[in-house]
Amino acid sequence: MTDADIDLNSDLGEGFGAWSLGDDDALLDIVSSANVACGFHAGDPSVLRRVTERAAERGVAIGAQVGYRDLAGFGRRFIDVDPHDLVNDIIYQIGALDGFARIAGSRVRYVKPHGALYNAVVAHAEQAAAVVEAVRRYDPGLPVLGLPGSQLLSRAEAAGLRVVEESFADRAYTPEGTLVPRRERGAVVHEPDAVVQRSVRMATEGAVTAVDGSVVTVRPRSLCVHGDTEGAVEIARRVREALREAGVTVRPFADAG
Amino acid sequence: MTDADIDLNSDLGEGFGAWSLGDDDALLDIVSSANVACGFHAGDPSVLRRVTERAAERGVAIGAQVGYRDLAGFGRRFIDVDPHDLVNDIIYQIGALDGFARIAGSRVRYVKPHGALYNAVVAHAEQAAAVVEAVRRYDPGLPVLGLPGSQLLSRAEAAGLRVVEESFADRAYTPEGTLVPRRERGAVVHEPDAVVQRSVRMATEGAVTAVDGSVVTVRPRSLCVHGDTEGAVEIARRVREALREAGVTVRPFADAG
Amino acid sequence: MTDADIDLNSDLGEGFGAWSLGDDDALLDIVSSANVACGFHAGDPSVLRRVTERAAERGVAIGAQVGYRDLAGFGRRFIDVDPHDLVNDIIYQIGALDGFARIAGSRVRYVKPHGALYNAVVAHAEQAAAVVEAVRRYDPGLPVLGLPGSQLLSRAEAAGLRVVEESFADRAYTPEGTLVPRRERGAVVHEPDAVVQRSVRMATEGAVTAVDGSVVTVRPRSLCVHGDTEGAVEIARRVREALREAGVTVRPFADAG
Amino acid sequence: MTDADIDLNSDLGEGFGAWSLGDDDALLDIVSSANVACGFHAGDPSVLRRVTERAAERGVAIGAQVGYRDLAGFGRRFIDVDPHDLVNDIIYQIGALDGFARIAGSRVRYVKPHGALYNAVVAHAEQAAAVVEAVRRYDPGLPVLGLPGSQLLSRAEAAGLRVVEESFADRAYTPEGTLVPRRERGAVVHEPDAVVQRSVRMATEGAVTAVDGSVVTVRPRSLCVHGDTEGAVEIARRVREALREAGVTVRPFADAG
Repeated sequence: MTDADIDLNSDLGEGFGAWSLGDDDALLDIVSSANVACGFHAGDPSVLRRVTERAAERGVAIGAQVGYRDLAGFGRRFIDVDPHDLVNDIIYQIGALDGFARIAGSRVRYVKPHGALYNAVVAHAEQAAAVVEAVRRYDPGLPVLGLPGSQLLSRAEAAGLRVVEESFADRAYTPEGTLVPRRERGAVVHEPDAVVQRSVRMATEGAVTAVDGSVVTVRPRSLCVHGDTEGAVEIARRVREALREAGVTVRPFADAG
Repeated sequence: MTDADIDLNSDLGEGFGAWSLGDDDALLDIVSSANVACGFHAGDPSVLRRVTERAAERGVAIGAQVGYRDLAGFGRRFIDVDPHDLVNDIIYQIGALDGFARIAGSRVRYVKPHGALYNAVVAHAEQAAAVVEAVRRYDPGLPVLGLPGSQLLSRAEAAGLRVVEESFADRAYTPEGTLVPRRERGAVVHEPDAVVQRSVRMATEGAVTAVDGSVVTVRPRSLCVHGDTEGAVEIARRVREALREAGVTVRPFADAG
Repeated sequence: MTDADIDLNSDLGEGFGAWSLGDDDALLDIVSSANVACGFHAGDPSVLRRVTERAAERGVAIGAQVGYRDLAGFGRRFIDVDPHDLVNDIIYQIGALDGFARIAGSRVRYVKPHGALYNAVVAHAEQAAAVVEAVRRYDPGLPVLGLPGSQLLSRAEAAGLRVVEESFADRAYTPEGTLVPRRERGAVVHEPDAVVQRSVRMATEGAVTAVDGSVVTVRPRSLCVHGDTEGAVEIARRVREALREAGVTVRPFADAG
Repeated sequence: MTDADIDLNSDLGEGFGAWSLGDDDALLDIVSSANVACGFHAGDPSVLRRVTERAAERGVAIGAQVGYRDLAGFGRRFIDVDPHDLVNDIIYQIGALDGFARIAGSRVRYVKPHGALYNAVVAHAEQAAAVVEAVRRYDPGLPVLGLPGSQLLSRAEAAGLRVVEESFADRAYTPEGTLVPRRERGAVVHEPDAVVQRSVRMATEGAVTAVDGSVVTVRPRSLCVHGDTEGAVEIARRVREALREAGVTVRPFADAG
């Protein structure tokens, strides 16, 4: 047993009009932080309304899952947006979601880039700076959730923003503690039991077994879980339950201040 | 001379990407209230950023010019949106603009529907109620700017919102004080001198000569001027100057509380 | 037994980007005519490519399922589009789909309006005329598939186009042979056995039992089946099988010339 | 005097809804080939209808100016589109434009990428291959218009497509005959007389003075002229007139087969 606590975050609100994606209701009973799509890559206003209301009711923290303006590509394609425009695209998305969060009696409590933007700001200095600038302008009290070692987090920290690191229990790690790139064999851990065990170990020991068998330190403040398939939701549910059994409290990192 | 004061409002921020429309900078030196497009019918985030900053610098009140989601139609085509979705479409737009207004050190200070939505809520009870519901949910302190006698204003008033009536010095009025429909001959006053004189008379006497020669009472809190052509901007400038000469103070209705 | 033949049509290609809708592959083994979304209300280019290729391989006729430009509303909201623009919106959609159909070794072989446009052109004379004008301009040899008694079909016929009437085995009929409006109780027939039996009777006897128990003549050239749920696909499969057992040949109306 | 002939091409049809861009009518009296936007970065269906009709009336060849799906960025931002999707995005655009071209009594007669896609396919092998594959699939008889030395043209040639090289009289050239990159000083020739003289020399002598004063061979089949400002249209008009005076016939490269 441990008295650790951790956050579970997942992407929500990714339907659009007649199209749905993922099981928002199921995830809202599992996660402590909801990365809510803001309308640029997914998420129409009625989706945002519904998700923010339900998140607020359950005490799930609402985060702005900001992305490129690309419905057809679901935000999964890098776009070489002028950084000045990117700042404004992100402010727009945060503001739009914040309106719904306020109506639900809450607020946008953090920002996490989505898809290709998430990947871009690992190394793309100008786009990372644009995300940081947008958050700083909108509300310098908003934490940024992202990948350890990314340009995004280092620049956010340098700008005085709170940064929150996340890990992925279903991704393989290198001996250096970074993610094995998706294009490489074994990059994704598919076996549900393994994902559950890795989640618990990350939360309780701050450690994970890397691809070479060595044990590396991975001490995330938040674990990212997926919900885009029925199987993924079930794994997320098991992660939540296993954390509880291990004495880990699942709660929003945003609550900790 | 008079000690009257009046508001001048105009549509701004209606460019999108590479496309510009109207002369925002010129209008910001003329009007006291800027109806800023919010991205659904026009207005990209960088446009919103620029207009809100300049409006705030000049003391021009920022209003959310909310419209249908219809870039291809510029919001000028009626869309039979489900009222529940329309509520959320409008909240989304207000929230997005409000983010930029806050960054500029101001706030969204009123809401005015655009184009086909403006026309729809004159008589369409459900869509009018949706606009009112959106404003009430977002911030019940926000005034609604619209057409006297419209469903929008009557419902807004019934819901406890502040309502602000506007008139159009370049539109002909019936003896009953309503606008001559655009499809009828003589609906639009094209002669610049006439527009200027009608503006001053509305502001100072609360009166206008109707199409039948009778004088009707039109006592607007705000005059709507246009800026989508060079000629229109020049007329607006002359209206502003003539009001000044007549001793009428042009200031945002939103300042009066 | 009978030597009748009939067409089965269904909406396909209604995914968009990351979002899928309906089971295109299953339906392509059931229907003889595929109403393929053309990108305005649903259907991205890769969806169109895939559906047209598979349809062509199976001998399923490709139809242009044209709709309003409204991804967020899935084309289910009436838009008061200027008829001149509507003509061009429809030509654009047919042309785009036809490119893929040609690549697949086929052609667009008919046009059927989707959703709110389908409903609008039952009575909206100008929009009905716009659809007819678009088809006539694009290719006057293209049949128009629609509702018996609609403005669309009467105008198409007057313009010299081939018109094809469709019926709905899962919709209740009035004693006059028209559809019971959806808002009325009992408008939709949910019981699978009933839908199957009504399909066969329409195809073999040209008759259906109306809501008052009377038998009315309904002699469609095409039956519209749905595929947006798993249950709907199963019913469509049963309709196909029951028609076969009743000796009815299911084949594209477009093949008959 | 000379008996040379050359093509003048320019971007047209780049308005969208209420927004206009460039002077299509003026350009249609100047150029011999119109690169018509197809709706993904600009160009709504009514714009396409109008431009194709007027182009056909004047004997101006209609080309598909295909771009990324990015209205907000006007196709000027690189998008890392999956090549498979890019093939289909381009087929869609060609097909849509071709529908209007046919109605106007013509056809799409060539393909030219726009903006960021034009720049990408200079060196991006996969996207260049995607454009080539799209053209080859749609109609292997369609020429591809592009930059000499680009991946696009070399791959198009290897695939058996006709390739057409264009030059820019308002761009500086290196001694190697390539364009001086835009980010370098002096990359653009602003002086109208110089642009006109360079145009004539390219057309008659197949030569241009490079930035170092040396004379390099530039023997384009087409000259690209701009029309997005009033000044640009006037220069284009002067280029056309100077070519006429020099005995150069301006006619579509597509006519030559």
